[in-house]
Amino acid sequence: MTTGLYIGRFQPFHLGHLEAVNHILSHVDDVVIVVGSAQHSHTTENPFTAGERITMVRLAMREANIDPGRLLIMPLPDAEFHKVWVAHILSQTPEFHVAFTNEPLTGRLLKEAGLRVEKLPFHHRETYTATEVRHRMLTKGNWEELLPGSVSKYIKSIGGVERIIDLSLSDKAS
Amino acid sequence: MTTGLYIGRFQPFHLGHLEAVNHILSHVDDVVIVVGSAQHSHTTENPFTAGERITMVRLAMREANIDPGRLLIMPLPDAEFHKVWVAHILSQTPEFHVAFTNEPLTGRLLKEAGLRVEKLPFHHRETYTATEVRHRMLTKGNWEELLPGSVSKYIKSIGGVERIIDLSLSDKAS
Amino acid sequence: MTTGLYIGRFQPFHLGHLEAVNHILSHVDDVVIVVGSAQHSHTTENPFTAGERITMVRLAMREANIDPGRLLIMPLPDAEFHKVWVAHILSQTPEFHVAFTNEPLTGRLLKEAGLRVEKLPFHHRETYTATEVRHRMLTKGNWEELLPGSVSKYIKSIGGVERIIDLSLSDKAS
Amino acid sequence: MTTGLYIGRFQPFHLGHLEAVNHILSHVDDVVIVVGSAQHSHTTENPFTAGERITMVRLAMREANIDPGRLLIMPLPDAEFHKVWVAHILSQTPEFHVAFTNEPLTGRLLKEAGLRVEKLPFHHRETYTATEVRHRMLTKGNWEELLPGSVSKYIKSIGGVERIIDLSLSDKAS
Amino acid sequence: MTTGLYIGRFQPFHLGHLEAVNHILSHVDDVVIVVGSAQHSHTTENPFTAGERITMVRLAMREANIDPGRLLIMPLPDAEFHKVWVAHILSQTPEFHVAFTNEPLTGRLLKEAGLRVEKLPFHHRETYTATEVRHRMLTKGNWEELLPGSVSKYIKSIGGVERIIDLSLSDKAS
Amino acid sequence: MTTGLYIGRFQPFHLGHLEAVNHILSHVDDVVIVVGSAQHSHTTENPFTAGERITMVRLAMREANIDPGRLLIMPLPDAEFHKVWVAHILSQTPEFHVAFTNEPLTGRLLKEAGLRVEKLPFHHRETYTATEVRHRMLTKGNWEELLPGSVSKYIKSIGGVERIIDLSLSDKAS
Repeated sequence: MTTGLYIGRFQPFHLGHLEAVNHILSHVDDVVIVVGSAQHSHTTENPFTAGERITMVRLAMREANIDPGRLLIMPLPDAEFHKVWVAHILSQTPEFHVAFTNEPLTGRLLKEAGLRVEKLPFHHRETYTATEVRHRMLTKGNWEELLPGSVSKYIKSIGGVERIIDLSLSDKAS
Repeated sequence: MTTGLYIGRFQPFHLGHLEAVNHILSHVDDVVIVVGSAQHSHTTENPFTAGERITMVRLAMREANIDPGRLLIMPLPDAEFHKVWVAHILSQTPEFHVAFTNEPLTGRLLKEAGLRVEKLPFHHRETYTATEVRHRMLTKGNWEELLPGSVSKYIKSIGGVERIIDLSLSDKAS
Repeated sequence: MTTGLYIGRFQPFHLGHLEAVNHILSHVDDVVIVVGSAQHSHTTENPFTAGERITMVRLAMREANIDPGRLLIMPLPDAEFHKVWVAHILSQTPEFHVAFTNEPLTGRLLKEAGLRVEKLPFHHRETYTATEVRHRMLTKGNWEELLPGSVSKYIKSIGGVERIIDLSLSDKAS
Repeated sequence: MTTGLYIGRFQPFHLGHLEAVNHILSHVDDVVIVVGSAQHSHTTENPFTAGERITMVRLAMREANIDPGRLLIMPLPDAEFHKVWVAHILSQTPEFHVAFTNEPLTGRLLKEAGLRVEKLPFHHRETYTATEVRHRMLTKGNWEELLPGSVSKYIKSIGGVERIIDLSLSDKAS
Repeated sequence: MTTGLYIGRFQPFHLGHLEAVNHILSHVDDVVIVVGSAQHSHTTENPFTAGERITMVRLAMREANIDPGRLLIMPLPDAEFHKVWVAHILSQTPEFHVAFTNEPLTGRLLKEAGLRVEKLPFHHRETYTATEVRHRMLTKGNWEELLPGSVSKYIKSIGGVERIIDLSLSDKAS
Repeated sequence: MTTGLYIGRFQPFHLGHLEAVNHILSHVDDVVIVVGSAQHSHTTENPFTAGERITMVRLAMREANIDPGRLLIMPLPDAEFHKVWVAHILSQTPEFHVAFTNEPLTGRLLKEAGLRVEKLPFHHRETYTATEVRHRMLTKGNWEELLPGSVSKYIKSIGGVERIIDLSLSDKAS
């Protein structure tokens, strides 16, 4: 059995992330989805808590009818320093065989530690980004079209857009 | 839908823990199983990494034919101080409605924060403890009878008993 | 008896802060004045130590003839993460009934935790800011008119203006 | 004007501590009372939060009619390491001229840093200790005779004795 | 015997640093070379690990025929806060009598703690900077002329230029 | 060229440690001597600062006429968790080829990470221990016979025995 690793901050989880999970599951038997920077929330870059982001991933997986037996979804706080990050993630996750990432530093650190790394074939990479989603939330744009329906609904139920607007005001005031 | 919370260190996961999960699933729709003290490993009290302990829980769940759609298994490092622990766990987990625990401090902190707490009806509480399992490992006793078969097999595959013996030698030498 | 909470960094304590304390004391019986980001000093944004800032607050209170029996002045280091900040402050302060703040994130976190929050009616909000005071110190402007006399005198006695100039040089060099 | 420093954990604040404050105030003009190990609570050695301990000190000072203008009561978390502890406390407190302590390590660290240290003339040193108070709470002894009346009353109002009993059970179970 | 202190991040160690060491050794008997911000690596500002930077310093010292008996080369992680930094460095280094630095904050903190500080007479200060070296690495400029030959060779042997380019891509993507 | 690694706490550095260094230098070209638990000092188990312990090692090396060109002596604070410790040490030290240790946990962690580990042939292992040295200091025994002469002399010059006695009193009082 082959296990893949997929790390993201998911602020919030969008359709590009869902596409990545589907791509990974077509190459491996099961996948560990790591919700990174788990300690952060309530900042403009990281508005949602790890618990909220795990909820988003689970909702998206259910909506897409992905078998829960093929998934492990878990939070991971940042390691204190880059050079211990790979040891940190290896100690917190079940064994995996290949990591999927397009992030140059993440890929480099995993490769320097001798692990196998594959790139992800994102379509429309400029549009399906969490930065774009948060930008549209702040400017009253159509952010919902970038997200699975159940994730949009959840974000509205917890007042997520209002939170992001408040955080941007705090940022300007400081 | 009702969600339960179950926290343990699972050093290692034994049949008493499995009984607790079954009890909880007879009362709630799904359960968040939190692998606590996730940062620790390679000590006499905490020999296994969080990743290894998550693996044990998943193996035990599969062996017991528990529906993976009703489970979320995740690691959680300790909070720095007791009084922020509840805020810490609330930020890292999806929403839950009731926590199951027999540990007095855990129960007190959750109740002081206004959360609902239920006790667990452990049978044979003296025998089915992780302390007893580790003690039998050190003294060549029958530790395997206390664990699900798949967990015993996994521990042997990673040299877990040898690790615990090594750690006890280190403890004496320091 | 009603207790209010007032949090600031006080880098340095100026006449706008004094006005806020007077406003609060006209609404509650006593006030806990929390000197936040207490761990920081010797940066361009946070030039003064918590001990120096507590000294400033005490001098300003004496100069304004405010009854010391109605005050508690204390340092508080930042919490590691936003979502545990409210639990952190609740564990370090005596019980309070209402928090006074205009800062959107602070207000949001306190309200999300179920606490009562009131806004402060600052006059001349652009002028009476610590940023403006530090700017005038760097540009040889009239910073003293923004501070209680005893605070200005104290800052000069510890070489505070020279420190801020040194720190701004360090910032450019790095 | 001479300022004294008095550091304690005050778990809880008892009549021996009150005697020490009175002794100090007969030698200096005002005193900084530092509630140490401020981050800890809910352990058998440190049952009360810093906020609760500050409340105890304030109640005891009011009951003893000590002028609040001569006091600064503040929490202080432990420094990470002994050799930076003196720098840590100097950065968090207003200037002081003499520290009062009978604790050998505290005295040594302050003296190694060139500060003036005086011993405290505790009477009945075996009886008036926080350890003895907590022991009597656990064994249904007369703990109230060791505390100022207002502090006893406060501890009962927050269920302090029940908390200490719960914590001792947790300790045995772990 | 007089001992000097020389602190730098050495990202990477260049000819300006070598000139500084020679200057210091003409004024004192031996020197403690502290590789600062030792915990950092794999960022655009701090690309190299402390171990790699220590290796660079040792290579440069050998190439320049400097007596190893006059040197102590050691890593030092940052202190958590500025006001405990001097206590931190004093606890980690052998006794020294004079510190050499041109950095205003470093000099101020050491002087505030009563230590002797001397400035360094850098020639061509705009050219011989680590920032300039890293810039030339990113823009295919002649970075090697700014470094001792053995250091250039070492950086190429560990793929240092490729790492810096990767890190700059990560920076843009985040 | 082959480089060895030798880690110890050296509280204090004694003749058994010196024998170990000589053994290592008969097998490798140079050695990195790591002064571990560098953050600790002023406790009964760790009385001396890292700076003092580095001074001891240097004095012992000079007294034994060991070529300083074959040595690198450096402090290392503990890693936060066991499973990132090897990554931590690899990031802070120059490249090494073999580690020398008799400590079971240290050896296990290095081996689990794929590094080469050799045991040390200590003679009189019960006598030449830092625990024995500290015990003799507390009980007025002949501790000096266990140490290189220059190290004994240095410890006396900094009042090391008095410090250890003070620390043991603090331990009893707490």
